[in-house]
Amino acid sequence: MSVIDGSILIGAKQVQAQARFQGLNPATGEVIGPDFSEADSGHVAEACALAAAAFPSFSTLSLEARAAFLEDVAARILDIGDDLIVRAMAESGLPRARLEGERGRTVGQLRLFAAVVRQGDWLDATIDPALPDRVPLPRPFLARVNQAIGPVAVFGASNFPLAFSVAGGDTASALAAGCPVVVKGHPAHPGTGELVARAIAAAVAAAGLPEGVFSYLPGTTQVLGGSLVAHPRIKAVGFTGSRAGGLALAAIAAKRPDPIPVYAEMSSINPVLLLPHAAASRGADLAAAFIGSLTMGSGQFCTNPGLVLALAGPETETFIAAAGEHLSKAAAQVMLSGGIWQHYCAGVDKLESHEAVTLVARGLAGEGVNRGQAALFRTDAQHFLSDEALGAEVFGSSSLVIVCRDKGELAQVLAGLEGQLTATILMDADDQPLAAEFLPLLAERAGRVLANGWPTGVEVCHAMVHGGPFPATSDARTTSVGALAINRYVRPVCYQNLPDTMLPPALQAANPWKITRRVDGVRQPV
Amino acid sequence: MSVIDGSILIGAKQVQAQARFQGLNPATGEVIGPDFSEADSGHVAEACALAAAAFPSFSTLSLEARAAFLEDVAARILDIGDDLIVRAMAESGLPRARLEGERGRTVGQLRLFAAVVRQGDWLDATIDPALPDRVPLPRPFLARVNQAIGPVAVFGASNFPLAFSVAGGDTASALAAGCPVVVKGHPAHPGTGELVARAIAAAVAAAGLPEGVFSYLPGTTQVLGGSLVAHPRIKAVGFTGSRAGGLALAAIAAKRPDPIPVYAEMSSINPVLLLPHAAASRGADLAAAFIGSLTMGSGQFCTNPGLVLALAGPETETFIAAAGEHLSKAAAQVMLSGGIWQHYCAGVDKLESHEAVTLVARGLAGEGVNRGQAALFRTDAQHFLSDEALGAEVFGSSSLVIVCRDKGELAQVLAGLEGQLTATILMDADDQPLAAEFLPLLAERAGRVLANGWPTGVEVCHAMVHGGPFPATSDARTTSVGALAINRYVRPVCYQNLPDTMLPPALQAANPWKITRRVDGVRQPV
Repeated sequence: MSVIDGSILIGAKQVQAQARFQGLNPATGEVIGPDFSEADSGHVAEACALAAAAFPSFSTLSLEARAAFLEDVAARILDIGDDLIVRAMAESGLPRARLEGERGRTVGQLRLFAAVVRQGDWLDATIDPALPDRVPLPRPFLARVNQAIGPVAVFGASNFPLAFSVAGGDTASALAAGCPVVVKGHPAHPGTGELVARAIAAAVAAAGLPEGVFSYLPGTTQVLGGSLVAHPRIKAVGFTGSRAGGLALAAIAAKRPDPIPVYAEMSSINPVLLLPHAAASRGADLAAAFIGSLTMGSGQFCTNPGLVLALAGPETETFIAAAGEHLSKAAAQVMLSGGIWQHYCAGVDKLESHEAVTLVARGLAGEGVNRGQAALFRTDAQHFLSDEALGAEVFGSSSLVIVCRDKGELAQVLAGLEGQLTATILMDADDQPLAAEFLPLLAERAGRVLANGWPTGVEVCHAMVHGGPFPATSDARTTSVGALAINRYVRPVCYQNLPDTMLPPALQAANPWKITRRVDGVRQPV
Repeated sequence: MSVIDGSILIGAKQVQAQARFQGLNPATGEVIGPDFSEADSGHVAEACALAAAAFPSFSTLSLEARAAFLEDVAARILDIGDDLIVRAMAESGLPRARLEGERGRTVGQLRLFAAVVRQGDWLDATIDPALPDRVPLPRPFLARVNQAIGPVAVFGASNFPLAFSVAGGDTASALAAGCPVVVKGHPAHPGTGELVARAIAAAVAAAGLPEGVFSYLPGTTQVLGGSLVAHPRIKAVGFTGSRAGGLALAAIAAKRPDPIPVYAEMSSINPVLLLPHAAASRGADLAAAFIGSLTMGSGQFCTNPGLVLALAGPETETFIAAAGEHLSKAAAQVMLSGGIWQHYCAGVDKLESHEAVTLVARGLAGEGVNRGQAALFRTDAQHFLSDEALGAEVFGSSSLVIVCRDKGELAQVLAGLEGQLTATILMDADDQPLAAEFLPLLAERAGRVLANGWPTGVEVCHAMVHGGPFPATSDARTTSVGALAINRYVRPVCYQNLPDTMLPPALQAANPWKITRRVDGVRQPV
């Protein structure tokens, strides 16, 4: 039933291009058919024109209709059945359980946004009624509502072929906001991408929406991505991937005649503070959990704990020794692609050959291609502070423990860190005073601060922030996971003295959508 | 009592620099003493270091303390008394009534933000309680709150020496959010700026806040502004001014090792749609009101109606003739500075010498220097569409009427317009179907859409959007006027599993600030 024929999907149209590229199985290095169409800037222009044409009606759809559409996308992804999991396993090297979980997350995300859309808080509908008798000047009727920003370009990540890809968080939140989406398909999982793209396109058709609500442009070239970001009809960009990739897209967006927002989630080493009492009371348990978090999914998470900060002392030595012991037994796992594996090896080699860095342990070597062999290193604060290359992300199961002489040195290391997606504190009750001292530094530098847990595992919920200061993301004011992500794709519009019938439903006197609204600054119950 | 001695204010310190510049009275061209210090990048570094030092405590101040501080700033501005008005009149050429009104607006803005801060909605406090028994995985406690982004650089505008300057909307909203502010003082009103800066500094001292909460750096050089935007401690920029100025600052911010948000309000010609029934039924009245809006304050408003779109027909001709009649009697008014006057004259000359543009009328010529002589021009849609220079802003009392053959041509002109702060529809009941056709085009292009009014006069309230797509602003997701402006200077931070006592008060179980919060996605009454 499931068709994968290498098509580009431009609205309802399936297009085969002359130029082709191939999907690869990272576990074997073998080609997985069929060949895939390589989309080009001509396809970009077609898709963007359709997206612009779809914008007026899709952006003004009723909340209920848009929510139902999102739910139908979720249902159709589930309907692909095991073909999707099998294909994603072959293309990503990720195990079945992980991909089944990720499918659940993807579907859950779409359903969360359906609920968010229905509830309507995201519209931030705000009404200041007219004050015709005010002196010296009357106040006109003024009402503000969030409206979709325009067609959005989405660049999925390789490391979540479902949850951060074609129907991932960026797509779900943009569609939820009322923005048509043009996805640039990731070449590391083209079959998986096409299956999901077809599910979305089918949902668009079934809902009777204009075809331009969704297009899918698979390809490998930088020209494809660049022309998509530069296209005048595109009004915002969602991206998850490398720092170099995100910066390149941000530069293109900034050079447009009309610069547009780019939400790029890029690079984070996710510092973990191991405080002394916790290290002393449960260092061995923490070491085991640390290596579990570090090596899960071959360490290919944006929130992988790539840096541990600890104070010098016997309890820290015990922790490091135990962590090394666990890591040395960690099996090598297939990485997502040959390119990612090569980058990982280069990053580990750099640390291993660095004169100020000591190898604590390597994981087990793998058999076959593209196996990521875990690595744990240590250094001290002064060396870390003197070479900023030591703070660069190594994407994969590699982490660096920094042993600090005292809390002053630890604070200095924290203050020198770039922006992060997460910062973690491992602490016992007696560590709390010290933790409280560091907390402001952490909250300034990270989108999420967590205690006594591990940064991997990002809950999809209302309170989540999967974001953070540069270079964790290009825009620290937002998140790419959780309900707040819908805010990235809206802008406020104020209506002054318009007749009630011309107002968006969210602002009409009768409140036809039954949403909460702020009137004269005070939020009204529904 | 009121001291103006040309100081730079770096926190609590008054500094006199060697380099000096002079204030000018635009009505006479004469120098107004004293000479003013020219701040440089050394002063920038000092002010930014103090701002960074002030950040941890100021950003975590209680809502009540921060609100009271804003109210005290307002009170101290009023306490300057008539000296402030007299000085601003001399430096800006604006009349007394206008400046008294602007002072009221400035004070009102500070008080509005005090109320907004106290109410706490802007924190968007969101809590997802732990679900320890959830399967397959428990959910940790997750809570999110908006936190101040860091020290903010503010560049005031020349055209509002109070309301968009030292204690204007940008400063008020940044302080409200908990961000220390470093103001680059506008050289067109240095005495006014210093008076207000001293009021703010006094309020900082009186509240016992760290001195770095506010610094004031007067000066004329691009190096000053550039080094402020480039300084690593600055985390966001607020700017109101020219397109060239805003783009230059945005480019500097984008080139930082850590790019930061720039909120630049730049350029808008504020299209006004004159629909046929309204033109026919009350064209003469509309013409009078149009010229009133166009020439108010010598047209030196961001929301000045610089473009009128109308359909060809006798009613439009009547409107144009009546508008020309009114304009020809408009007195020339002093413009804000010699530079602005020269730019205005150059813009008007360009239109006057354009072969496709017809002069409808000029206002009265003025006596003395820097008098802006109003101007009204007309052209047709085809010529407007064929030369994008005709869509450039002419800052001052100049407007261009575009006569369109039919509604298709009118839609074409609208679709070709750049982003705008405002779009206005003048309509009667019978125009409503046509207005409804154009409304989506307007809402896509403007931050505020208004009916049967004039875009000048921007209400400071909860629903206001003084923003819009590029080049109206550099960031269409925000506003620089109204309560929503506080959102520009915050970022969300999520806390996971932190002990209650370590959480920001906004997220603590006892809700000590008594704010509304969202729990499991549902907003709770206080």
